[in-house]
Amino acid sequence: MKVVRVSLGDRGYDILIGGDLLGRVGSLFRSRGVGPKIFLVANPTVYDLYGESVRESLTKEKFDVVHLAIPDGEPHKNLHTVENIYTYLIAQKADRRSTLLALGGGVTGDVAGFVAATFMRGVPYIQIPTTLLAQVDSSVGGKTGVNHRLGKNLIGAFHQPSLVCVDTTSLRSLPEREYRAGLYEVIKYGLIYDREFFRFLARNLEGIARREDPLLERMIGRCCEIKAETIALDEREENQRRILNFGHTLGHALEAATGYERYLHGEAVAYGMLAATHLSHRHGLLDAEALREVSRVILAVGPLPSAADIAFPALAEALRRDKKRRDDATVLVLLTEIGHTVIESGFEDQLLAEVWARAVAEVEA
Amino acid sequence: MKVVRVSLGDRGYDILIGGDLLGRVGSLFRSRGVGPKIFLVANPTVYDLYGESVRESLTKEKFDVVHLAIPDGEPHKNLHTVENIYTYLIAQKADRRSTLLALGGGVTGDVAGFVAATFMRGVPYIQIPTTLLAQVDSSVGGKTGVNHRLGKNLIGAFHQPSLVCVDTTSLRSLPEREYRAGLYEVIKYGLIYDREFFRFLARNLEGIARREDPLLERMIGRCCEIKAETIALDEREENQRRILNFGHTLGHALEAATGYERYLHGEAVAYGMLAATHLSHRHGLLDAEALREVSRVILAVGPLPSAADIAFPALAEALRRDKKRRDDATVLVLLTEIGHTVIESGFEDQLLAEVWARAVAEVEA
Repeated sequence: MKVVRVSLGDRGYDILIGGDLLGRVGSLFRSRGVGPKIFLVANPTVYDLYGESVRESLTKEKFDVVHLAIPDGEPHKNLHTVENIYTYLIAQKADRRSTLLALGGGVTGDVAGFVAATFMRGVPYIQIPTTLLAQVDSSVGGKTGVNHRLGKNLIGAFHQPSLVCVDTTSLRSLPEREYRAGLYEVIKYGLIYDREFFRFLARNLEGIARREDPLLERMIGRCCEIKAETIALDEREENQRRILNFGHTLGHALEAATGYERYLHGEAVAYGMLAATHLSHRHGLLDAEALREVSRVILAVGPLPSAADIAFPALAEALRRDKKRRDDATVLVLLTEIGHTVIESGFEDQLLAEVWARAVAEVEA
Repeated sequence: MKVVRVSLGDRGYDILIGGDLLGRVGSLFRSRGVGPKIFLVANPTVYDLYGESVRESLTKEKFDVVHLAIPDGEPHKNLHTVENIYTYLIAQKADRRSTLLALGGGVTGDVAGFVAATFMRGVPYIQIPTTLLAQVDSSVGGKTGVNHRLGKNLIGAFHQPSLVCVDTTSLRSLPEREYRAGLYEVIKYGLIYDREFFRFLARNLEGIARREDPLLERMIGRCCEIKAETIALDEREENQRRILNFGHTLGHALEAATGYERYLHGEAVAYGMLAATHLSHRHGLLDAEALREVSRVILAVGPLPSAADIAFPALAEALRRDKKRRDDATVLVLLTEIGHTVIESGFEDQLLAEVWARAVAEVEA
């Protein structure tokens, strides 16, 4: 088991990463002084897979566990679900020392985290992310929140978990496409921060595709370390943390332009990274060899759903609504080399359209 | 103008206290680097009194001001109002650097503060409290939140304002009963923390009743200092900050038992303080002379609505639901002398009933 410490002063916490952790959460929680009452938040799909095993491990250690079912999927990531959880917590006599335990993917973590941030002005919460994306991204960093009908993630708070447990074995049940979508976020960490890690991924794509536990432990551990180091410098995304948005500005625009239905988040980010890498090259920041290497590894993960019918103007409107804009300019993270970034703004639509077309063509090729 | 600094590291802020501040907020904000876009949250009653004057002062300094009207009163302090504000902010293109300005009493500050805590994971907010209670209590300390239909303030977050402006002149429009209710909270600060301040209040009750600006500036300033010192030691109410709850456990129970309609919050706290002071004496912590002095000053503020028909069992049920209970025991702040407290728990209902009866009889006498 690997332990990654997220250093945030009195809000710091550990991420535990290893195989077959789910059956051991009881003793892991016990040794870390988790409070006696635990509300286990999970959707029916995830509960069916892992709920009873987690519950059994916890009750064996005498925790008082209450299962709190939430509906499955992004459309339910809203204030209505949040309000239902408040009502249930009150009815079940939750108090300030009750722990919310989020078992599942990003939606479950975001919703449970937001409830933990806002119930009785903040209660402890623990995450057991079961998708690769949640393991390397949303479960680290304290971003919680829900969607408003006028925009995604517009309602939220920063609230750090007290512990994160990543069971690499649980990835075996993850559908192939979701697993690959998570790998694009994994690649992102290499690109923005660590050339050696990027090369490690490039060398081991086959073993990673087979989901071998030791490779996964190392891979997820390094992603969590990079994210932890980044947010320790900038918890509230005012500066350094923005490098994590590499590929995300265009990726979000692609998701918005297609109604959040055609692409998984990681797939849209893959497009965003390809376009941002082309832009880095066109901007004179990144040499041609690095551009080819980045494209090769992203495309080697597997087939991406086509974007041949999405022309740039469809993205431009979504870019104008981006909540990370500053002074009305689109801000993008670019690469100067593999492992190093720079943040720039003030691009002409003409240039963005051109690199977008290149990214799309590359996927089609 | 008096400036009280709330020392909370990078979340620290200033409280400005003085007469006729409302017409000067534009230049005060300007000199403190407040962002260009301000959403002025106020209910119609307060907006009619002060809204235009604040707006004019801000627009003169080239701030972009949008008025955001919220309904008046505690029944609207809920998620529904919060959701309407989110929608309005999005429609008006608020971004992460927009400032929410709460102009009004505790409800306005709590609601606007909660929105500021949770819109786009936190935007800046500034408070201009216009009731005595909000000036000495809710505007200091970062508690924000709304009610759930099953309980008050169950939904909320800690979110510190970036600035608080207290205009003592604005108290002249406050109804007599609301003003007196705020004075009980003022007396609380003397009782829990500062015997000299308690004596100052006792000596100046008449000038305070006439709402003389210099007395108010000194009085409110000292309350804010005491609250600031207390929360600097314990921002999230885990320990030291709990002394601020003196009189509040029984006070909340009285409010709950009477459906939050018969007493203003401060009036219920006055009953709670009387009962807690009697309990301190019966418990052997506080001498008879101090008990008499405390009772005399509380009763000198003015008539309290009767509680002659409220027997202790009506409070006991509400006490059992108190969110500050620990291990199923009622926790109370008691006095060892004027200006010093101790926190105790494990009282017999019989004893609580007895001191409650004494407090009620004293008010009737």
